[in-house]
Amino acid sequence: MAKKVLMKGNEAIAEAAIASGCLHFFGYPITPQTEISEYLAKRMPKVGGLCLQAESEVAAINMTMGAAAAGSRVMTSSSSPGISLKSEGISYIAGCDLPCLIVNVQRGGPGLGGIQPSQSDYYQATRGVGHGDMRLLVLAPSSVQEMASLTAEALDLADIYRMPAMLLADGALGQMMEPVDFSAFPKREVPEKTWATNGMGGKRKKNVVNSLFIDPNELENSVVERYKRYAEIEKNEVKYEEFMTDDADIVIVAFGITARICKSAILAAREAGIKVGLLRPITLWPFPKTQIASLAEKTKAFISVEMSMGQMVDDVRLAVNGRCPVHFYGRTGGIIPSVEEVTAEIKKLAESL
Amino acid sequence: MAKKVLMKGNEAIAEAAIASGCLHFFGYPITPQTEISEYLAKRMPKVGGLCLQAESEVAAINMTMGAAAAGSRVMTSSSSPGISLKSEGISYIAGCDLPCLIVNVQRGGPGLGGIQPSQSDYYQATRGVGHGDMRLLVLAPSSVQEMASLTAEALDLADIYRMPAMLLADGALGQMMEPVDFSAFPKREVPEKTWATNGMGGKRKKNVVNSLFIDPNELENSVVERYKRYAEIEKNEVKYEEFMTDDADIVIVAFGITARICKSAILAAREAGIKVGLLRPITLWPFPKTQIASLAEKTKAFISVEMSMGQMVDDVRLAVNGRCPVHFYGRTGGIIPSVEEVTAEIKKLAESL
Amino acid sequence: MAKKVLMKGNEAIAEAAIASGCLHFFGYPITPQTEISEYLAKRMPKVGGLCLQAESEVAAINMTMGAAAAGSRVMTSSSSPGISLKSEGISYIAGCDLPCLIVNVQRGGPGLGGIQPSQSDYYQATRGVGHGDMRLLVLAPSSVQEMASLTAEALDLADIYRMPAMLLADGALGQMMEPVDFSAFPKREVPEKTWATNGMGGKRKKNVVNSLFIDPNELENSVVERYKRYAEIEKNEVKYEEFMTDDADIVIVAFGITARICKSAILAAREAGIKVGLLRPITLWPFPKTQIASLAEKTKAFISVEMSMGQMVDDVRLAVNGRCPVHFYGRTGGIIPSVEEVTAEIKKLAESL
Amino acid sequence: MAKKVLMKGNEAIAEAAIASGCLHFFGYPITPQTEISEYLAKRMPKVGGLCLQAESEVAAINMTMGAAAAGSRVMTSSSSPGISLKSEGISYIAGCDLPCLIVNVQRGGPGLGGIQPSQSDYYQATRGVGHGDMRLLVLAPSSVQEMASLTAEALDLADIYRMPAMLLADGALGQMMEPVDFSAFPKREVPEKTWATNGMGGKRKKNVVNSLFIDPNELENSVVERYKRYAEIEKNEVKYEEFMTDDADIVIVAFGITARICKSAILAAREAGIKVGLLRPITLWPFPKTQIASLAEKTKAFISVEMSMGQMVDDVRLAVNGRCPVHFYGRTGGIIPSVEEVTAEIKKLAESL
Repeated sequence: MAKKVLMKGNEAIAEAAIASGCLHFFGYPITPQTEISEYLAKRMPKVGGLCLQAESEVAAINMTMGAAAAGSRVMTSSSSPGISLKSEGISYIAGCDLPCLIVNVQRGGPGLGGIQPSQSDYYQATRGVGHGDMRLLVLAPSSVQEMASLTAEALDLADIYRMPAMLLADGALGQMMEPVDFSAFPKREVPEKTWATNGMGGKRKKNVVNSLFIDPNELENSVVERYKRYAEIEKNEVKYEEFMTDDADIVIVAFGITARICKSAILAAREAGIKVGLLRPITLWPFPKTQIASLAEKTKAFISVEMSMGQMVDDVRLAVNGRCPVHFYGRTGGIIPSVEEVTAEIKKLAESL
Repeated sequence: MAKKVLMKGNEAIAEAAIASGCLHFFGYPITPQTEISEYLAKRMPKVGGLCLQAESEVAAINMTMGAAAAGSRVMTSSSSPGISLKSEGISYIAGCDLPCLIVNVQRGGPGLGGIQPSQSDYYQATRGVGHGDMRLLVLAPSSVQEMASLTAEALDLADIYRMPAMLLADGALGQMMEPVDFSAFPKREVPEKTWATNGMGGKRKKNVVNSLFIDPNELENSVVERYKRYAEIEKNEVKYEEFMTDDADIVIVAFGITARICKSAILAAREAGIKVGLLRPITLWPFPKTQIASLAEKTKAFISVEMSMGQMVDDVRLAVNGRCPVHFYGRTGGIIPSVEEVTAEIKKLAESL
Repeated sequence: MAKKVLMKGNEAIAEAAIASGCLHFFGYPITPQTEISEYLAKRMPKVGGLCLQAESEVAAINMTMGAAAAGSRVMTSSSSPGISLKSEGISYIAGCDLPCLIVNVQRGGPGLGGIQPSQSDYYQATRGVGHGDMRLLVLAPSSVQEMASLTAEALDLADIYRMPAMLLADGALGQMMEPVDFSAFPKREVPEKTWATNGMGGKRKKNVVNSLFIDPNELENSVVERYKRYAEIEKNEVKYEEFMTDDADIVIVAFGITARICKSAILAAREAGIKVGLLRPITLWPFPKTQIASLAEKTKAFISVEMSMGQMVDDVRLAVNGRCPVHFYGRTGGIIPSVEEVTAEIKKLAESL
Repeated sequence: MAKKVLMKGNEAIAEAAIASGCLHFFGYPITPQTEISEYLAKRMPKVGGLCLQAESEVAAINMTMGAAAAGSRVMTSSSSPGISLKSEGISYIAGCDLPCLIVNVQRGGPGLGGIQPSQSDYYQATRGVGHGDMRLLVLAPSSVQEMASLTAEALDLADIYRMPAMLLADGALGQMMEPVDFSAFPKREVPEKTWATNGMGGKRKKNVVNSLFIDPNELENSVVERYKRYAEIEKNEVKYEEFMTDDADIVIVAFGITARICKSAILAAREAGIKVGLLRPITLWPFPKTQIASLAEKTKAFISVEMSMGQMVDDVRLAVNGRCPVHFYGRTGGIIPSVEEVTAEIKKLAESL
């Protein structure tokens, strides 16, 4: 029988990393994710791992790149402003085809913003975190259990596809306490890191990890090759949850903590006789666009509910592609939309249909 | 009569900045935009300005923020990896409602990538350069003349709307020499900077420049307020060029250097009897979505041609919203598509219609 | 008639620098010398100069080196811990034969120590501030007037002998207010900087500023050559003040603020019939060893009075070379010895003779 | 029977550190001491230790301070310019009464200087490495065996007297290979680190490690207290070697690699009938001044032979205090004086007596 432990979301990430064999962590403190560092600072030495507080976020991401190049499972974590600081390094990691896990426990922005939860780094995570043609695997947990299981999954995916993965959480999930079952998540088979620059011991040719290609043909080839892998991922690794979508006239798209609020709002709206359901993307990249397109054939309208001024709604619109209207409802700056306001939004939309 | 000067694109940016009263520049060298720094290092002292090579890109953007806060017209420039390093600072500038100009003379990515021209920072410029809900004004020059005139325009827009603007150029435009007429661009009226933190002299209350709001309501209000300004910009400041779209069955959407190649391809395809035209966005944000939507009513297909793996194509699709098919053609890694290959792409599409 | 201005010692340094044509200043704030930066931040722009607050002391000294290499008169200032941070740069400046002025407004040490005045960086200033065989010109003001006039003198000496000079002041002198006559100090003739790396304009061979010599013979030659200049300085530039030494049985050696206290103590001791005088070194390097040696022929004992645990006393002993006893009296950690305790020390010594 | 291992001097330092229980090392590469880092990077993980290459020398010394504060045995190493960069941190460590070992494998200076061996950081090591009243224990090995045994001794002394110790070596000793017997050096009893800030576990009052004292009386008391310990060290820990001084008319004072050359020169001069001997200081601070003073009673002259322009000669003169003449012979910039030139110098002096 599985043993459940009551933990904060931030701690669940940390413990899941260790449980998944990630024994290198490089961080720099920032609210609301500092518990990850704190937890690992205590735990890592006990399991023979390394938790290092770098002198800055820029240093932390470059140390992460170094450890990844040497073949270690490695994680870094920060919150919104710190992820911006890491963005050059993230692009380098992508350009070097290195696996690692970057945790973003989002807070309100832009700038210093606030310390309350937010989902306003969606654009950055899915499109622009770094310069150049590149993608991150982006996984969005919605419970403390998923903070753990998606950490494990992201580490596996990163290794399988040799690319950086991001766990896009938020301050509410980071601070929330729920029971976690560490036996519940299966491990995937990951390839051996024959490309790692971890010393040859005279046994093989020198490995090189590099993102610089002076010849543009070589650079283009390397990018095109990478996009073939991205296409594989879009085919094989999309994850989402559906809730009451079967008969839904209205489909809410929401991820993370927001999806939980939407479920309550859906139950309330159903009681009022409104047929509404939820599509919760678990992978934000690859985005569940095929499933949304298919729902668009039978539903009357979508609403993207986000803790931002509207970012994922672009991806919903791209998937729906004009088949039906796509609305948006959001709060920002650290405010979590209430069940009541989402229910009201559903009702308003239902009346207009 | 206007006097024209033969200049490199990078120099045109630099000279236009000075001509527009931008007397503060903070940079750090990176190919292919180093001529901007070099030019300003020589010219700024002669016009009473300041050109400072900072110790890093992170320092340069923070100095830019400081000068902006003090009410100076200020510019920084870099190329792709350097822009990633600046991204935390850019989000802070946006969050502080400060005007400044950030020049990105794009090179191939991700990572160190190459030193040849590219347009693969489109996503970053238009969506994810920094964390949080925020936008940049993004202007995309297509000639050395526009390197100058859009620099002037971007500085004015930044001041008018109190937000950072980006000139999104590329290495080809930066290195290309063409005649520039500095008398040709009109100056806009810009408001006085009554908010600047430049000393009170006992005459007014203390100004505060800040992006931190501990109370989430205050933070949300500040973001919502900012998005009202963004809506104004989307209404008033969209710029684009149309070329042979009147009767076009196929509309190419392309910006920057790529648009010039597309014009030649269009002329070639027209000779072959294909009705094809070009919509060239000059502002990438705000994106000319209304005009594209309106073209979508009468055209049969769009192709987004880009020097990337396909980024602006998302915005074209969002504007077209399913009204007709949207195709993509691109080269990446520093390779500029040739007139021949774009023409071939047009012909292939024309045959399939 | 000379016009006197009432100023703080720190301000007198700053104003004297400008009056002496030093238009470049690079600093970083630290108590008790921050007024120098503050004053120059306001004044420099008005006289066409540059006052830059660097990102750290290490940056400030390297900017100082750069400005010096380009032929500018340049000054940096700090207090004790900040001078330690600058020590690599100071050694580089010495090894490159570059002139500049480094101001040390000493506070108590070691470590963070305190913010009260001290003279405990004497060893560092005269012997070990940087690695390698090298010297600094070290001038020790004893009044606000000298804070100004020795700043001017140090800048001239640095230029004449192409080496870094240090003004070794302390927090008491920095904060003290006294009238200063800026017309009082003569300017020396300084050579043209034909070695400066300030652009050739096609008129001469490239100048090189360098401290790296891979061939040890070249390095030795460069050091030996420099020590010939040092020998010239020891012959020509020793400065000191004598006070009542003619008939003195006891000679106090003291510099800076301590020398002023010693004068009062001497007057008090003279009233008690004790023949005591003062030798005040104004240059700490070159040290007035010949004059002390000559006093040692006729006096019965020396006391070195310092605000430290005893550092200059080594130089006094080296000069006296066993001819008579050399005693020490000092306070440290920010405590200025009182007239009473110095008088008591004199009396105790007089009785033992 | 003791087992001897053939090793480079730099490696001997590294291995001796581990053998002495020093399991934390923080460094930054610089010729000619990089082998220490290289060796420890490989060995530390195998013995459960930590070898970290910091982002700069400044970071390395601050990490050293942190590890020392937490009660670890800790070492950092560098060569001349890097030691200058560490000087603020060294003063902080001294001001916090923390034990650690700083290795300086000297190269020619000032500035970048050269990469050949030198002894020109003597002044810095013995007097001015940091601001404020402070001392380092300074040990000067003269063989690869001593590179090892004095590393062990320095670590013990640092712990016993709670202060930083420096191993002042040079590039020749660092690169030289000789057999080392690691069983040969005795371990001293060191006190428990009850002052370490390593977590209270609820068992004791909070420890504080600090060098800041706002009250000058407290600061003075802390310095005076420290100087009492320094006096103990001067009484108990002086180490030197004498060679043929019994009947010597001339006593050479030389340390490190220079002392070995002087021994050969002494043998050559003895063959020529000159009575000459050697006093080799093993501790440079505390300096063997009593023993030199006592030799000064019976010898006719001293020569200080150094790889510098003359630095230790000050300490010889201070010890001799005029009892007989003190001469100097030196080479600098990376040149090791030859046996022939030292012999010639001895003969020249012998003739003049």
